[in-house]
Amino acid sequence: MKELISIVAKKEQVDISILEKGLEEGSIVIVKNKQRDIEPLGIGFPLSVKINANIGTSERHCDIKEELKKVKVSEEFGAHAIMDLSTGGDLKKIRKEILSQTKLPLGTVPIYEIAYDLIVKKNVGFEKMDIKNFLEVLEEQAESGVDFMTIHAGLTRHCVERLKKNKRILGVVSRGGSLLVEWMEKNNKENPLYEHFEDILRIMKKYSVAISLGDGLRPGSTLDATDASQISELIILGELVKKSRELAVPAIVEGPGHVPINQIETNIKMQKYLCHNAPFYVLGPLVTDIAAGYDHISAAIGASWAAYFGADFLCYVTPAEHLKLPTAEEVKEGVIALRLAAHSADLARANKLAWEKEKEMALARRKLDWQRQASLTFNPKKAKDMLGDKLSQEEPCTMCGDLCAIKTSDRCKI
Amino acid sequence: MKELISIVAKKEQVDISILEKGLEEGSIVIVKNKQRDIEPLGIGFPLSVKINANIGTSERHCDIKEELKKVKVSEEFGAHAIMDLSTGGDLKKIRKEILSQTKLPLGTVPIYEIAYDLIVKKNVGFEKMDIKNFLEVLEEQAESGVDFMTIHAGLTRHCVERLKKNKRILGVVSRGGSLLVEWMEKNNKENPLYEHFEDILRIMKKYSVAISLGDGLRPGSTLDATDASQISELIILGELVKKSRELAVPAIVEGPGHVPINQIETNIKMQKYLCHNAPFYVLGPLVTDIAAGYDHISAAIGASWAAYFGADFLCYVTPAEHLKLPTAEEVKEGVIALRLAAHSADLARANKLAWEKEKEMALARRKLDWQRQASLTFNPKKAKDMLGDKLSQEEPCTMCGDLCAIKTSDRCKI
Repeated sequence: MKELISIVAKKEQVDISILEKGLEEGSIVIVKNKQRDIEPLGIGFPLSVKINANIGTSERHCDIKEELKKVKVSEEFGAHAIMDLSTGGDLKKIRKEILSQTKLPLGTVPIYEIAYDLIVKKNVGFEKMDIKNFLEVLEEQAESGVDFMTIHAGLTRHCVERLKKNKRILGVVSRGGSLLVEWMEKNNKENPLYEHFEDILRIMKKYSVAISLGDGLRPGSTLDATDASQISELIILGELVKKSRELAVPAIVEGPGHVPINQIETNIKMQKYLCHNAPFYVLGPLVTDIAAGYDHISAAIGASWAAYFGADFLCYVTPAEHLKLPTAEEVKEGVIALRLAAHSADLARANKLAWEKEKEMALARRKLDWQRQASLTFNPKKAKDMLGDKLSQEEPCTMCGDLCAIKTSDRCKI
Repeated sequence: MKELISIVAKKEQVDISILEKGLEEGSIVIVKNKQRDIEPLGIGFPLSVKINANIGTSERHCDIKEELKKVKVSEEFGAHAIMDLSTGGDLKKIRKEILSQTKLPLGTVPIYEIAYDLIVKKNVGFEKMDIKNFLEVLEEQAESGVDFMTIHAGLTRHCVERLKKNKRILGVVSRGGSLLVEWMEKNNKENPLYEHFEDILRIMKKYSVAISLGDGLRPGSTLDATDASQISELIILGELVKKSRELAVPAIVEGPGHVPINQIETNIKMQKYLCHNAPFYVLGPLVTDIAAGYDHISAAIGASWAAYFGADFLCYVTPAEHLKLPTAEEVKEGVIALRLAAHSADLARANKLAWEKEKEMALARRKLDWQRQASLTFNPKKAKDMLGDKLSQEEPCTMCGDLCAIKTSDRCKI
């Protein structure tokens, strides 16, 4: 652990003592499966804000080469972690292929593997899932090197009761969450992941896998946001954070979802209070339901502010969200939009490295040094293409020409 | 005026009495040159948030057909106003062509016409500008039908002194602002637009042109944000708001610029206090300097929150910002990003029409009604193309397939 701490402290230029205190209190976690030969990822304030890219096949669109291309694109444009959410093809093979081709921490949702096996391959209902099988799948994934896993253990029968008493337009939009609701309803039993939470933790501990406590009841519409069932699950997630810490499993908590702008601060603060300051891993949040085709922008708006208010880990959303599985190009757009969001939040969180980069850009802009400006952007190739032959000249751009305000400022020595 | 009020009230579904009160107090303005046969545009809370698209030629890139295409694209994707910032070619002809081809309110920055004439055509310095000429240009533009004009009258010698005492990395990044600084420095005189402010207002009043009080000292870097010179100009702009109201010219105030997330709320509130609740017209704000190629997203992040905190009118930024004059395609991307920002702020501002649309989308999503979902997005064609043959089926998309959470929710009746 000492070695991991020193790597993260050096990379983030944060005092080791601050990192140690955060790790002890659980406000910071370090993600890395002990089997993997990768750089550890630190998540939690005052470390920089991190972003995750979801990839993976589906039963209706399954091409492993395409998914590996998405891995490459995610790495190239600066994602800090990848989740393999595959639900199509040979899941184990796909996961192992991804693990072998990336140095980024990899996350999974083990329940997907079981759901795919039961629903798609065996054509029986998810209610047939048994915990023994779940724990086997979990261990096989942990053993193969997965660094963090989403476990929807907080969605209990009590929460389902809240859901029934407080109707939503969009019900349960989390795949894992909806399947567990179905399991509980059909078996008339408590969520098995909740019942066997300690067994789950013991396996994760064995391989140093971090737990990402899934929010099965995240709102899927701004009209459903911050409601009884969402918050009732959050309360349980807070209890599970404590349990995870007791068993020495690094815990982060997942959050919404679709949330209107005016509710984001409250959502983040509620999570921090109820979940004992555990790092918060948000999906967006999307600030409107109507942005399909541009949901990466909707997510960037919500995520940047969520991170400013205290979220630590941002799951990207691509322009394809709500419409289809994304292409590699759409993955790229999603990664860039969320990197932008994370950087803007880092500035607001007074992150030293972010401000150094920001200053470098302002200085390059003052000098009309286009080459340097382009190299500092999130996609240097795009910036260079847009600049064209301007790239090599210290000349104003085509927007202002001779009316360039920077040239005028220079003349006035201001 | 009665007629304009009733059109705006009906369109926005706001009580006439609320509109009248806002207009009387100056917290709402209606934009429309009395010469033009267009729908009036209401700006200010509790009306919906509006967005503006800047177009126009430059001396280094001048193609009127391309600019007219940008006008069409801006209208098609829902811009509420257009500014013609042309500084290349036959400016009068370009403006008249644009006026004839759009039903949107048109804004200009009259000083650009003079700067272009002096610097580019006559090859003399901007310090040769005289106020008589400025007033003539202003009147000709007002007479031709321009609906609102940016006037940088608040940038006084006192502000320049603040600028010199509080050095910035990027000096003055407003074209108009930088030229007026040069004029004051070389002539050793006060800003002529400030000195002759009443003459300006009288002409605007004659044609019912709204004044947009330009912020010549807006920060061009997050490192320069919310500094002495910016706020010293804002103080003067507040005084000019009062003067404009005295002379019955509808006044809005322009705002930053480059502002880190944590300073946006303060910026908006300072403007509302110092400028007597006048509608605030913000350029972004951009939440980081390093997003060239993706500045429309940076602007959407800042603008949505600025509007939530009280800004009323959002100037778009395109992906080409800081690199070059935008293409029509880049204009489209800018308009959509800012429409998304405005809608997300409308939700947070409890705008009834925005929530109705939001609810329609959630209901269509619950029904897996792809056709309806696509039609409710900001770019239905893009959404339809992404859906492909899914469009006509009530089937889950390729992301989740049989694991579709909505299908599962249906089965569980939640």
